[in-house]
Amino acid sequence: METPCIALLLTGNELMSGDTVDSNSAMIATCLGDHGLEIGEKCTVGDDPTLLQSALARLAQQYPAVIVNGGLGPTRDDLTSEVIATLTDTELTENPEARAHVENWCARRRIEPNPANLKQAFVPAGCQLIHNPLGSALGFAINVKDCLVLTTPGVPSELEAMLPALVTHLEAQVGGEARQILRLQTFGIGESSVEERIKKYADRWPNAVTLGFRAGMPQLELKLSVPSAAHLPAQEEALALLEEDFGDHILGKGSTRLAEKLQAVLRNQNKTMTTAESCTGGLIASMMVREPGSSAVLGTGFVTYANRAKRDQLGVASTTLKEHGAVSEPVVREMLLGALERSGADIGVAVSGIAGPGGGTEDKPVGTVWIAWGTRDDLRTHTTLVSGSRSLFQNIIAAACLDLIRRHLQELPSLPHYFSRQA
Amino acid sequence: METPCIALLLTGNELMSGDTVDSNSAMIATCLGDHGLEIGEKCTVGDDPTLLQSALARLAQQYPAVIVNGGLGPTRDDLTSEVIATLTDTELTENPEARAHVENWCARRRIEPNPANLKQAFVPAGCQLIHNPLGSALGFAINVKDCLVLTTPGVPSELEAMLPALVTHLEAQVGGEARQILRLQTFGIGESSVEERIKKYADRWPNAVTLGFRAGMPQLELKLSVPSAAHLPAQEEALALLEEDFGDHILGKGSTRLAEKLQAVLRNQNKTMTTAESCTGGLIASMMVREPGSSAVLGTGFVTYANRAKRDQLGVASTTLKEHGAVSEPVVREMLLGALERSGADIGVAVSGIAGPGGGTEDKPVGTVWIAWGTRDDLRTHTTLVSGSRSLFQNIIAAACLDLIRRHLQELPSLPHYFSRQA
Repeated sequence: METPCIALLLTGNELMSGDTVDSNSAMIATCLGDHGLEIGEKCTVGDDPTLLQSALARLAQQYPAVIVNGGLGPTRDDLTSEVIATLTDTELTENPEARAHVENWCARRRIEPNPANLKQAFVPAGCQLIHNPLGSALGFAINVKDCLVLTTPGVPSELEAMLPALVTHLEAQVGGEARQILRLQTFGIGESSVEERIKKYADRWPNAVTLGFRAGMPQLELKLSVPSAAHLPAQEEALALLEEDFGDHILGKGSTRLAEKLQAVLRNQNKTMTTAESCTGGLIASMMVREPGSSAVLGTGFVTYANRAKRDQLGVASTTLKEHGAVSEPVVREMLLGALERSGADIGVAVSGIAGPGGGTEDKPVGTVWIAWGTRDDLRTHTTLVSGSRSLFQNIIAAACLDLIRRHLQELPSLPHYFSRQA
Repeated sequence: METPCIALLLTGNELMSGDTVDSNSAMIATCLGDHGLEIGEKCTVGDDPTLLQSALARLAQQYPAVIVNGGLGPTRDDLTSEVIATLTDTELTENPEARAHVENWCARRRIEPNPANLKQAFVPAGCQLIHNPLGSALGFAINVKDCLVLTTPGVPSELEAMLPALVTHLEAQVGGEARQILRLQTFGIGESSVEERIKKYADRWPNAVTLGFRAGMPQLELKLSVPSAAHLPAQEEALALLEEDFGDHILGKGSTRLAEKLQAVLRNQNKTMTTAESCTGGLIASMMVREPGSSAVLGTGFVTYANRAKRDQLGVASTTLKEHGAVSEPVVREMLLGALERSGADIGVAVSGIAGPGGGTEDKPVGTVWIAWGTRDDLRTHTTLVSGSRSLFQNIIAAACLDLIRRHLQELPSLPHYFSRQA
C-alpha cells in the first residue's frame, strides 16, 4: 500500500439483519477520498460487546486510525464507549462539556433529560470530544495504543455534519495528500464511451489528472482528481479537453441534477415548459417539481395515459389515434401541440410508449417510445427502443425528455449520443 | 452466540471508494435470516490480493462458513478464485462444465468467447460449481480447512438468482432453523405505535412469534417470525390479533406496494381514478403508472401547479383562488370536482400545499397541505402539516393521497392515525 490506510468499523444489529442498507460507509469513503485518505478495510458487526471489542482490537493493531460508526446512542444496545473504555483500560466518566451538550439538546426540545439521555455524557476519560451539531450523541477521539480511534453516530445526517472534524483529526494523524477533486455531472454518455473518447487525445491529457467515475441513475459523475492544489491548472486543462469533446453532455459541476440544470436554463431564458405524458405518467413533471423554485418554469402538465385523455385534454384527433395508434409520431406531435396551446408554455415535451411488461406487438415491441419536443415552430420527434424493466424504462425516458428540452433551449445537437445508436 | 454464525466477505474497489453503496450484503442477510441463518461479521476489502487473502484466512478460521461476494468477473481485478486456490493450496484448472457455461453464455449473445471470458472457466480444483442462471461468472463451494467457502458474483441480479443454492449449501453445513417469516406491508403507522398497541394484548400474543420491523419510505414492513413450520398456527394467531387491531393499515403480505394495492382495489370494484396535483407535481400519478396494468385504472391526471392551470385545466373559479388562496379547502374541492368531471373517473384526489423551502407564511407555514378526495357525492377534505425536506413532504403526501383513496373505496376509517394527530 502506498498511502496509509484507515479502517472503518460499523456496528448495529440492523446492519447485520439486512434491515438497513449501509450508506454511511460510502459517505465516509467519498469524503475521505476527497482528502486523499483511503479506507483499507470495512468491518461490520452487530451490537455484541465481545465481537465489537475483538474487531476493534484487531483493527487498532493493523491500522493507524479507525473510525467507529454507530453505537453512541442512548440505549443499552449502544456499546461503543464501553468497549473503548475496556480496551484503553479507562473508566467512563461524565464529561461536563458533554453533559451541557445533552442538556442543551433536551432543552431545545423542551424535554427533561432522562437517564438514557444523560448516559451519553459518559465518555472514556482522556478522550477529545467531537462536536455533533445536530444530535445528542457526541463523538470522540482517543488513542488505543498507537491507533487513533474516532467515534461517530450512526444517524446519517449527524455523521455528515461531523465529517469535517473527522478529516481534521485524521489528517493530523496519518497525513493525507490534500487531493483536489472536481466532480462533473453528465447525462447520456457511458463510462466506456468516455474512456474510448479520451484515448484519442491521450497525448494531450495532463499526467497529474486521474479520471474516476460514479455511475448514478440516470446521470454519470466524472471525477477529475489531482494530487494537490498545485496541480489545479492541470485539472482545468483536462476539463477543457472534456468540454471541447463532449461538453453538450456536461450538466454542471458538483451535484447538479438534470431537472435543476433545465430549470436554470429556462429561468435564464425567461421561458416556461409543459409536459404531456403517457407512459411516464407524471414522472417528468414530478422530476421538475421536486426542485425548489419550479413554480416559475412549470405551471401545467398533462397525464394522458388513456386515448380519451389524449383527445379530451390535449385535442389529439380520434382519426390520428385510430390510424397510427397511441405510440406513433403523429400522436406525440399532436399531444405536444395541444399541451403547448392549452398551457401557454413556451416549450414542452410529449411522450408515448410501451413500458411493458404487457402491451408489446411485433411491430412495436415493449420498450418502443415516441417523443416530441420543442416549440410550436420548431417541433422535433424521435423514436427509440429502451430495454429493461418498466421502472428503468420510465426513468430513462423521463430523464431523456428533460435533456432534450435542455438541448433544444441551449441549441446543442438535438440527437445526442444516446439516440444516435438507434437513429 | 446461540446459533452458528456465518461471515460475509465483500470485495471490490468500488465498495471502498464510496462509489458504490453495498446493497448486496443486506440482500444476503435478509434471505439468510428468513432461513434462520445469521451473519456474525461482514468484512469488506478492495481488490488487493494480500488484503483479500488475509481477510479470508482469518474469517475461515473464526467461522464455520464464509460467503465471498465479488471478484469473480473476467478482469484482472477479479481475484477471488486465485486467492482461494492459494489458501487451499490447489491449482486453478479449467472446469469443463464451467467452460460450457461460458461458451453458451457468449453464444446467446452472438459473441466469440475472448480470453477474459474464458478465464472464468478456471476454478480451484475440487470445488463444487454453483450455477449462475444470468451471468457468465459461476460461483463455487469449497472447503478451506473446516470452513465452507461459497463464492458469488457482485452483480446484484445474479447474486439474487443464486441465493437459493447458497442457502442449500449453508443449511447442509451449519444447520439453520428453518424459521418461517411472514412479511406484512403497512402504511400510516409507526414502529413505536405498533409496539405500544401490542402491549395492550401482550397476554394474548403467542410466545413463539417474534415481531420485527423494517422501515421503508413510505411503508413499514412487519415481520412475524416463528422458529419452524410447526409454529405456523401461532403465526396465524398473531396475524389475526394485528388485523383486528389495525387491519386498516395493513396493505398486504410480501412486498405489496401502496399503489399496487390501490390498483387491485380499483380493479375489483371496476373503477377508475384521477389526480389533480399541485405541490406533488405528477408524483401521485407516476406512482400509479409505475405499476404494470395501470392503464385500466388511471387514464387521466392533471398537474396544475400554477393558478392559471387550476382555472384552465380544472375549472377552479378565479374568485375562489383570490378569496381563499391556492392552498385552501375550497380550491382543492373545486380541483377535485373539475378533475372528476373532465376525466370521467369514478374517484380521485386533489392536493395543494406549500412544499418549501420558500412560499410559507405565518398563517400557512411551509408543510401546510390541503387534500380533497373521494367522489362527486362523497367528497372529503382535510388539512395537515408535514415537516421535513421538500422531497420528504412530496413523498409522504403522495403516499397518503393514494391511501385515502384506498380507504374510501374499502370503507375504512377516513381519517387514519397519521392524520388524527393533527385533526
